[in-house]
Amino acid sequence: MADLLLPGSYRVDGILDDDALVGAMLTVELAWVRALAATGGASAEDVLATEQAVAGFVPTLDPVAVEGAGNPVLPLVTALRTAIADTDIASRVHTGLTSHDVLDTALVLLARAAAEQTLGALDRVADALARLAGEHRGSVMAGRTLTQYAVPVTFGLTAAQWLIGILDARGALADATGDLPVQCGGAAGTLSRAADLVDDPLATAAAFAAGLGLVAPTLPWHTRRTPVTRLADALVQTCDALGVLADDVLLLGRPEVGEVGEGAAAGRGGSSTMPHKQNPVLSVLVSSAAQRAPLLGAQLHLSAARAVDQRPDGAWHAEWSALRTLLGVTAVAADQAAELTEHLDVHPDHMRRRAESVADQLLAERGDTHDRDLTAYLGVSSRLVERALLRHREVRDDG
Amino acid sequence: MADLLLPGSYRVDGILDDDALVGAMLTVELAWVRALAATGGASAEDVLATEQAVAGFVPTLDPVAVEGAGNPVLPLVTALRTAIADTDIASRVHTGLTSHDVLDTALVLLARAAAEQTLGALDRVADALARLAGEHRGSVMAGRTLTQYAVPVTFGLTAAQWLIGILDARGALADATGDLPVQCGGAAGTLSRAADLVDDPLATAAAFAAGLGLVAPTLPWHTRRTPVTRLADALVQTCDALGVLADDVLLLGRPEVGEVGEGAAAGRGGSSTMPHKQNPVLSVLVSSAAQRAPLLGAQLHLSAARAVDQRPDGAWHAEWSALRTLLGVTAVAADQAAELTEHLDVHPDHMRRRAESVADQLLAERGDTHDRDLTAYLGVSSRLVERALLRHREVRDDG
Amino acid sequence: MADLLLPGSYRVDGILDDDALVGAMLTVELAWVRALAATGGASAEDVLATEQAVAGFVPTLDPVAVEGAGNPVLPLVTALRTAIADTDIASRVHTGLTSHDVLDTALVLLARAAAEQTLGALDRVADALARLAGEHRGSVMAGRTLTQYAVPVTFGLTAAQWLIGILDARGALADATGDLPVQCGGAAGTLSRAADLVDDPLATAAAFAAGLGLVAPTLPWHTRRTPVTRLADALVQTCDALGVLADDVLLLGRPEVGEVGEGAAAGRGGSSTMPHKQNPVLSVLVSSAAQRAPLLGAQLHLSAARAVDQRPDGAWHAEWSALRTLLGVTAVAADQAAELTEHLDVHPDHMRRRAESVADQLLAERGDTHDRDLTAYLGVSSRLVERALLRHREVRDDG
Amino acid sequence: MADLLLPGSYRVDGILDDDALVGAMLTVELAWVRALAATGGASAEDVLATEQAVAGFVPTLDPVAVEGAGNPVLPLVTALRTAIADTDIASRVHTGLTSHDVLDTALVLLARAAAEQTLGALDRVADALARLAGEHRGSVMAGRTLTQYAVPVTFGLTAAQWLIGILDARGALADATGDLPVQCGGAAGTLSRAADLVDDPLATAAAFAAGLGLVAPTLPWHTRRTPVTRLADALVQTCDALGVLADDVLLLGRPEVGEVGEGAAAGRGGSSTMPHKQNPVLSVLVSSAAQRAPLLGAQLHLSAARAVDQRPDGAWHAEWSALRTLLGVTAVAADQAAELTEHLDVHPDHMRRRAESVADQLLAERGDTHDRDLTAYLGVSSRLVERALLRHREVRDDG
Repeated sequence: MADLLLPGSYRVDGILDDDALVGAMLTVELAWVRALAATGGASAEDVLATEQAVAGFVPTLDPVAVEGAGNPVLPLVTALRTAIADTDIASRVHTGLTSHDVLDTALVLLARAAAEQTLGALDRVADALARLAGEHRGSVMAGRTLTQYAVPVTFGLTAAQWLIGILDARGALADATGDLPVQCGGAAGTLSRAADLVDDPLATAAAFAAGLGLVAPTLPWHTRRTPVTRLADALVQTCDALGVLADDVLLLGRPEVGEVGEGAAAGRGGSSTMPHKQNPVLSVLVSSAAQRAPLLGAQLHLSAARAVDQRPDGAWHAEWSALRTLLGVTAVAADQAAELTEHLDVHPDHMRRRAESVADQLLAERGDTHDRDLTAYLGVSSRLVERALLRHREVRDDG
Repeated sequence: MADLLLPGSYRVDGILDDDALVGAMLTVELAWVRALAATGGASAEDVLATEQAVAGFVPTLDPVAVEGAGNPVLPLVTALRTAIADTDIASRVHTGLTSHDVLDTALVLLARAAAEQTLGALDRVADALARLAGEHRGSVMAGRTLTQYAVPVTFGLTAAQWLIGILDARGALADATGDLPVQCGGAAGTLSRAADLVDDPLATAAAFAAGLGLVAPTLPWHTRRTPVTRLADALVQTCDALGVLADDVLLLGRPEVGEVGEGAAAGRGGSSTMPHKQNPVLSVLVSSAAQRAPLLGAQLHLSAARAVDQRPDGAWHAEWSALRTLLGVTAVAADQAAELTEHLDVHPDHMRRRAESVADQLLAERGDTHDRDLTAYLGVSSRLVERALLRHREVRDDG
Repeated sequence: MADLLLPGSYRVDGILDDDALVGAMLTVELAWVRALAATGGASAEDVLATEQAVAGFVPTLDPVAVEGAGNPVLPLVTALRTAIADTDIASRVHTGLTSHDVLDTALVLLARAAAEQTLGALDRVADALARLAGEHRGSVMAGRTLTQYAVPVTFGLTAAQWLIGILDARGALADATGDLPVQCGGAAGTLSRAADLVDDPLATAAAFAAGLGLVAPTLPWHTRRTPVTRLADALVQTCDALGVLADDVLLLGRPEVGEVGEGAAAGRGGSSTMPHKQNPVLSVLVSSAAQRAPLLGAQLHLSAARAVDQRPDGAWHAEWSALRTLLGVTAVAADQAAELTEHLDVHPDHMRRRAESVADQLLAERGDTHDRDLTAYLGVSSRLVERALLRHREVRDDG
Repeated sequence: MADLLLPGSYRVDGILDDDALVGAMLTVELAWVRALAATGGASAEDVLATEQAVAGFVPTLDPVAVEGAGNPVLPLVTALRTAIADTDIASRVHTGLTSHDVLDTALVLLARAAAEQTLGALDRVADALARLAGEHRGSVMAGRTLTQYAVPVTFGLTAAQWLIGILDARGALADATGDLPVQCGGAAGTLSRAADLVDDPLATAAAFAAGLGLVAPTLPWHTRRTPVTRLADALVQTCDALGVLADDVLLLGRPEVGEVGEGAAAGRGGSSTMPHKQNPVLSVLVSSAAQRAPLLGAQLHLSAARAVDQRPDGAWHAEWSALRTLLGVTAVAADQAAELTEHLDVHPDHMRRRAESVADQLLAERGDTHDRDLTAYLGVSSRLVERALLRHREVRDDG
């Protein structure tokens, strides 16, 4: 995932790139041989030979062969079989699976790794926001609606709103990640070839799933892409929540506002030409991720809606990069947001001074009969912060 | 929703159009007065006067005023207040709410109505598919992958795959619909104005929600659009499932294939020029819905990711039409799909004849050592159908 | 297009709604009879009878029939034929066309009307921006990049950048509008039926186009949707340019910045709860249009990429609403932007005061060896304004 | 661009990857020094030292530094300056530019290279289609609309329609590529720093453009992204045209239809499990590209609509990957389509036999009074083919 055009991509190094994909495909092929062996379709020798072949195996796949097969699985299987001396054993590797099974399951493994890293980052974000919400539940600031001053709020409430967004997204992502299934249907989703090898192909599928720590689906999902879209929806929801946070930081951090600031870090935020500048780089990058995620998610739904026949002609192929990019973009953004929120500079004095200076506007709704105390017109702000913090504690106690 | 460019829009007549929206906004305003009264912020007279004003009230909103306010709420409130003779009472209507509260809650009411109709239609689709899956669990047909013959499957399994897609979508939509919240935050999400009227504004919010049969959210969601995007994701998932079904029917119903056909209905499928034609109109329309839903969903996520300040400057406004269109498109497509699946013509003899005529290809995977009996190479097809039917029964027993 | 959820939709009243569509379809059917008559395929009596039937004809189309036909053309043709007493003449109406021809051409007529209104509005925007650019070429303001202060610019240059964006979009839209073609291919794009009526069906197609003031395309475009996507791209480009302008106004009009403001108008910008508020309604609505246009354009490209067979099964149907909505959203936004720019309040004193107060930052790039005069570090700002104004004059002289 | 999840990505090896980007950025920095020297802002020594530093320079950019700067330019400039012994000269490298200038211009260079390769591939596609259109102008086949039999067409006309689509796209892409501009505005688009170095910064900008073979824009386009979106629209249009072709080949190549087939090539189209299978791999991959392009284009428009301030905070960053991916996907798909169309197997006998077997349906529109000769009901098919071929010759003579 090293990518000069995705600053911060180093944060997912080794998790989503082509090498990780090849490794995951080999893991899948080995898990299948083991599952066959566990259910009477392969021998201990088959497993041993496959384990030896897979160990440290880093095949180079001919790109022309990848294109010729339409995906990298067939070239990988060929390379793997070549690496096994015994041709009988070699011929049994991958038998019963289709390339669709292997690639889907390998992408699920990558997805799990990326999503777990994302969940860890979201926990850090949530903890940082909970701290901010608590510390600033009394920090009065101007509420702004449609860009203009509204009524007073607190920065604690602002952080609490971000927090609930993150917690909701975290929950959706954990749910989607926890249910990730193997793909296991054979050529047309009937496990017909596997049924020639074992008595109970669904038991083999279950063993395959168990071996990978994944779920065995009710039915193969070659043409029912809910596992992909459900994960995608959760990733997009995550980026939505991160985007609101980042865009708010960018607005509140404009020099004319100056109510929050991105914590300075050595070597960050510099300009190539203006020595004074301290660009809010993390917020900018998180915002850009949030601007991209919805279309990546839509891509996956478009493919899901077009998954025809027993396996489709192009819709599936349009998924792969969108899914990998969405996983990477979200994981990077979540990690950047963790750093952002953990080091956010908050300026409650600026907030209060500005709010007091425009108190007439902030209190106009209330009418003239009251005094000018902003803190007397905060409504349920404090109770809402409490609710958010309670929710945070519940989630963290669960986790 | 009468719309010549959305054939079938009559199926949601009166549920989503501007009149329904105005009605919903009045319902919301009345529910708020009642909630205030229930919690000490308004009198029985206020409620009575508002009830009388709202009853049968069909205000005409000046479109220039709607634009001037940026949304239809302020003109509606003005009209409603004018309809109440007592100016003191009139001035209390809407007090404590913001236009954002009213429009969000009104759209939630429309969403609930449309989603409930959609759920009913999905139940019909699921029942029809369960019947097809059961009846045709033994109907052998050619499996097709990447457009070419693969291994044999059954039409029952094909229907079972569609069925699981529908059941999953139904579940997601029911979950999203069951949790729909009121919006209730006042000018900047603090309920500050309400706090001047009642002792416990959160109790008022809870009464407001209860009065409308909706959920009271933990925090206002002016800038945290999860209720919208969660519903949208479920609607898009619904269209995904419907789209696969429709596109498969279109492929299997091509005259060169002829394995299924859209049931004929008087006055349907005719051509303006070719007398012989019987166009698969329902499938075509359902497919077109599925081609549209993902971008409508993405629109809502883009808005969610940009919900800045205490209430945003444009992102919210970009939601409304996308949400209404997505609700309408999905409800219409689900209803069309109910009719499509309930009257689907299935031709198991054609399926079998074709499969037998290309048995060499369908059995090539198996190798040469077996006989040519297609039914002996169906793997776990029948067990997968059983799983789907079991799942269907469980869902229907729950419902 | 009256639509409570598209504030400002009154600005396109009567241009894009279902009545306008029915009118356009009747215009198309009449133009076809006339074209047939001009090329030997119909009689003067046919033309006269059709003219009489069409005049003032406002058929009510049964929505169930519209769905049954898959589009409104067949019900319309049936109604029109019924309105013609002579059944021989009646049977010749529409003969040679397919419903796809009629609906595409009718939508082109609506598109032309909406685009022409949009072009007029863009001219107003351009004139207003040219005036602003000229008046404020010396109005120094802080340049802002990545939200932070950069080097000084002028408001004139800012307006000049907006101006070039508008002029580019205007050019693209004028080009796309000027080339709009009729659709005229008959059942499968061969004009086979027409060839039974006239000697030279392409001459009939040319007469058809001439009668409507449209272009006769090289080939029918049932499956080659470039006329639609080219127009859509220009509309999206228009919204892009409007969106930048609106978002900049929103940022510069934030109360903490206060360098521009939306001109006040009676009854505009009010809040339903806060008496002091003056919301920048036009900018908000224009911004929301710009947030929607890209996905509507993408919808049309998705359909274009899927226009299979001689006429496709769903992709075409997915176009209609997206095109109509995109036309409406753009026309409304352009008109709103005209009003916005014509009445924009610019505060050059505020700009200058702020710039001077942060001169250290704005001049940091230059290094320490120069004086602190901001106007001495404006680079080519003034020459760029001149270029933009020259471009504006050239475009307006052409127009 | 080596990417296992984009089969065929080897076709753009070395054109779009990070190494190519670094090379392009160095080319841009050198071109700027040369432009300064040509207009009095740098010395011959500066040029020589920069040339020497750039020659063969392959810097490794620290990914943390890339993220800290928000893009790869600042780390690259630092590395380049370090590679120049004379610190005075080193300090002048990049002076007058901003990182936005360098990255935009470098991406334009990559875009030009990819687009030129795409144009070459489109020429091959067009030539192949022109040959097919000419050879098969008499090859009668069943016309199909909404999936059902319509009236007869010819395969020549089908190919002619594809051809016009390709020629239109080629024209749009050539126009967009021919106008690609440098980006050259300095910190905030005023060339303020450059104005301290040279008398006429716009002359420097012009020399910069000339040195790179690009256009000098009227104004910098940091916030006016038309060069990007115009190119993107042309790329999406290209994929639209390719997608129609690929999807038609997939439909006509279904085994039940069998009217065209993807030419067999050694090692292509194999299945990982079914020995008989010959998957239409190229068509599948081209179709998947067409399913992706519209959303990538929409991403660029979303960024264009949000290009605020003098340089925006996230919208620009969201462009980069979308643009690179769109360029790569299109170039690969065009190249694959060239191979596909040059080796397309056409089966006119199958076409004719099927058409004759359903002649009753294909001629139903005509009524009963004519004979059953399909070729007598082809309308203007042949003349439309002529028009397309004429257009092809004109385009090719121009080229």
